[in-house]
Amino acid sequence: MSEELSELLDGVGVASEDDQDRVISNIVANKEPEEVALLLEALPFNQRLESWDNVPQEEQLAILVAMRSDPRESLLDEMPLESFDVLFQGMEAEDLVELSESLPSRLVDRALRAMDQKQRSYFEGAKQYSEDLAGHWADHHLLVLPQNAKVRDGLRLLRREIPIYADTIFLINRTGHFSDALRISRIMGAPDHLPLVDLSEESIAVINANDSAVDSALKVQKSVFTALPITDESGILLGRLDIGTSCQLANEYYERQLMAGAGMDEDEDLFSPIVKSAKNRAIWLGINLLTAFLASWFIGLFEATLQQVVALAVLMPIVASMGGIAGSQTLTLMIRGHALGQITHSNFRDLLKKEVGVGIINGVIWSLVIGGVVSVWFDDPMIGIVIGLAIIVNIVIAAISGAYIPVILNKFKLDPALSGSVILTTGTDVVGFVAFLGLGTMLLL
Amino acid sequence: MSEELSELLDGVGVASEDDQDRVISNIVANKEPEEVALLLEALPFNQRLESWDNVPQEEQLAILVAMRSDPRESLLDEMPLESFDVLFQGMEAEDLVELSESLPSRLVDRALRAMDQKQRSYFEGAKQYSEDLAGHWADHHLLVLPQNAKVRDGLRLLRREIPIYADTIFLINRTGHFSDALRISRIMGAPDHLPLVDLSEESIAVINANDSAVDSALKVQKSVFTALPITDESGILLGRLDIGTSCQLANEYYERQLMAGAGMDEDEDLFSPIVKSAKNRAIWLGINLLTAFLASWFIGLFEATLQQVVALAVLMPIVASMGGIAGSQTLTLMIRGHALGQITHSNFRDLLKKEVGVGIINGVIWSLVIGGVVSVWFDDPMIGIVIGLAIIVNIVIAAISGAYIPVILNKFKLDPALSGSVILTTGTDVVGFVAFLGLGTMLLL
Repeated sequence: MSEELSELLDGVGVASEDDQDRVISNIVANKEPEEVALLLEALPFNQRLESWDNVPQEEQLAILVAMRSDPRESLLDEMPLESFDVLFQGMEAEDLVELSESLPSRLVDRALRAMDQKQRSYFEGAKQYSEDLAGHWADHHLLVLPQNAKVRDGLRLLRREIPIYADTIFLINRTGHFSDALRISRIMGAPDHLPLVDLSEESIAVINANDSAVDSALKVQKSVFTALPITDESGILLGRLDIGTSCQLANEYYERQLMAGAGMDEDEDLFSPIVKSAKNRAIWLGINLLTAFLASWFIGLFEATLQQVVALAVLMPIVASMGGIAGSQTLTLMIRGHALGQITHSNFRDLLKKEVGVGIINGVIWSLVIGGVVSVWFDDPMIGIVIGLAIIVNIVIAAISGAYIPVILNKFKLDPALSGSVILTTGTDVVGFVAFLGLGTMLLL
Repeated sequence: MSEELSELLDGVGVASEDDQDRVISNIVANKEPEEVALLLEALPFNQRLESWDNVPQEEQLAILVAMRSDPRESLLDEMPLESFDVLFQGMEAEDLVELSESLPSRLVDRALRAMDQKQRSYFEGAKQYSEDLAGHWADHHLLVLPQNAKVRDGLRLLRREIPIYADTIFLINRTGHFSDALRISRIMGAPDHLPLVDLSEESIAVINANDSAVDSALKVQKSVFTALPITDESGILLGRLDIGTSCQLANEYYERQLMAGAGMDEDEDLFSPIVKSAKNRAIWLGINLLTAFLASWFIGLFEATLQQVVALAVLMPIVASMGGIAGSQTLTLMIRGHALGQITHSNFRDLLKKEVGVGIINGVIWSLVIGGVVSVWFDDPMIGIVIGLAIIVNIVIAAISGAYIPVILNKFKLDPALSGSVILTTGTDVVGFVAFLGLGTMLLL
């Protein structure tokens, strides 16, 4: 995909202005909406708008739905009001759920008026659950039959239409409660009069609408079904979470984590306006600045020492950075473990012991290496001893911090992927500087 | 999933030793192999081995296949030789492809001897492609018919068996070349004598066995099919890439990126032996140490200045860290763009301009803030001016570096997710220290 996209992108780039029209139409006609969405996101602002004008109106909805919200909004903002009527024609609830976060409420209302009663009620249903809950992402293209249906009924249903990503028929009772699921494959060739219940799957995982969306998405991915039923608290079948939506939720989750490492949003537009970008990123720089000032303040406590032994100033960054790296290794492993539910009370102590063990081994090894090099560099074994001791202290404390930080942040419902590394490096910076300069003050003056 | 897993894990943790047997058997009977795999990975070494003894032999293969390779090897290493014969019974090529990286070649041979000719040839076929190519992951549970087949033939095929994740029938010509695909849904209720070709999909993306595995996986996820055909260079149908495998490939790709940020492997075992863990992580610490020594060496050039203006030593970390953060924001955005194929010659210059613009805005804003605070703190406006200028220089150079580093690393076929941030922070450290201490030498002495 990535290579193909690059080629398309270069194609758009080299096309003359008169040619753009033809090039874009050609791409839209031959590629999936998701690929066109990626392409549009990769175009600089003006070029993106020009290209968008060449996308046939009937293709626009699927492409907008597939785009990240920031670049999507850059297009929606420029669209003339009357074009929304075309956009909203025949739109389904699932599309509006995706788009509504990018639309002013006025336009959402307009879209709702263009929908039939059923789609409108699906939309209202989805809006009862926040984005991070499975219920928000319920799809309503279901194969459903009453509990007492026969194979004959199943075949009739399949002949009408099999929705995309549907490999099972869901059975419900008279009150709309989910009862069973059976694979389409099992009714092919089965006797007409057989009750479907007799062919149902032994066990299919059921998603509660209030379950975490990401957890549910991963559950669908691992389930060997292409969709799992979503029910409300009382067990009434609301819809399904299909594997297409699950892939999108899982990939967004991972991208959010990757972007969070740099304090950015998953929706960040490659070509968002400069001022908007600068503003988005300034907050993270500000937070980081506070932590940097904190570290500096601690260094300032040792001004007198630094004045006398300037070598300490030269070597300071080494101690801080070794602690930061060692701590981030533990932290990264722990964050993954927590996200997968693999870390609990029952194994945390063992994990901590292991991480501290790793910290001690690496602390000792690297303190010997660094101590040795520094002793030779500054021709003073005492400085070597000071930095060696500081390295051990900082690496071991970094391991302990890396293990505890996600536990504590989770307790306060904060995302360790976002704030974990700032807190960790602030800690390892401060501990590193204080240990090194403190030991220096004691042993070198 | 994550909460459910945590509960299971606590259940195993509190169970008495006599009870373990029952608890584990119960979990294995009721959960998907993928969930049992996650659970086993989360158990400390000895407990993991004990639990494994309680997993019925007929369930072991699916669980092993679902595990990460490091924890999987911890189990395989302890299994008695005779138990492999049970494990290998009825094993399919796809399972052995997954397991073979964890098995000594002696055992792979033994597994191959237990397979029939067809499975053996599938395995040999997969081994012709490296892990990062789509051909390695070809699944062979296909619905295939000759190009001239009729709806009647299609229905007969479906009545026999519909493999998991199969929503299309592939048509091949006499020489085995892929020609068309049609959705199962389209033949339900179609007239018996209609040629299947008449119902085929207008366009289905075809994966070349030499295409990148991750790119192909994302293509499957976005395709609205549950599997895409894989062909060799000449167009002969080799198998399919199904959406289950695609999810696994995509998730592993993202986890690899997240772990790479801390210099670790996606396969890292939560409970790998301490010495092994320490060794794995030592390399990354060593690389980081070299870069830290480099930064220190540059600081050392300004020893005389530091001795006279000790405030510079106190403030050094601020300059370096602001550059590091700003640069990593650009770098993270660029790495994602490259991975998705969204950055090419045609838009790189525009992107660079935008990132430099963002850098200038944030550089100016934060240099004013920091310069102001520092002027007051040290009661010396000159130090404020020095740090302000250094901050602007470092943030702008950081933006440029963040944009260019992935381009350069990609040119050398190196993974920017792994080495990008080390190179970047080394650069921003050195530039930050030199700019700050250099300006200090010029303006303060």
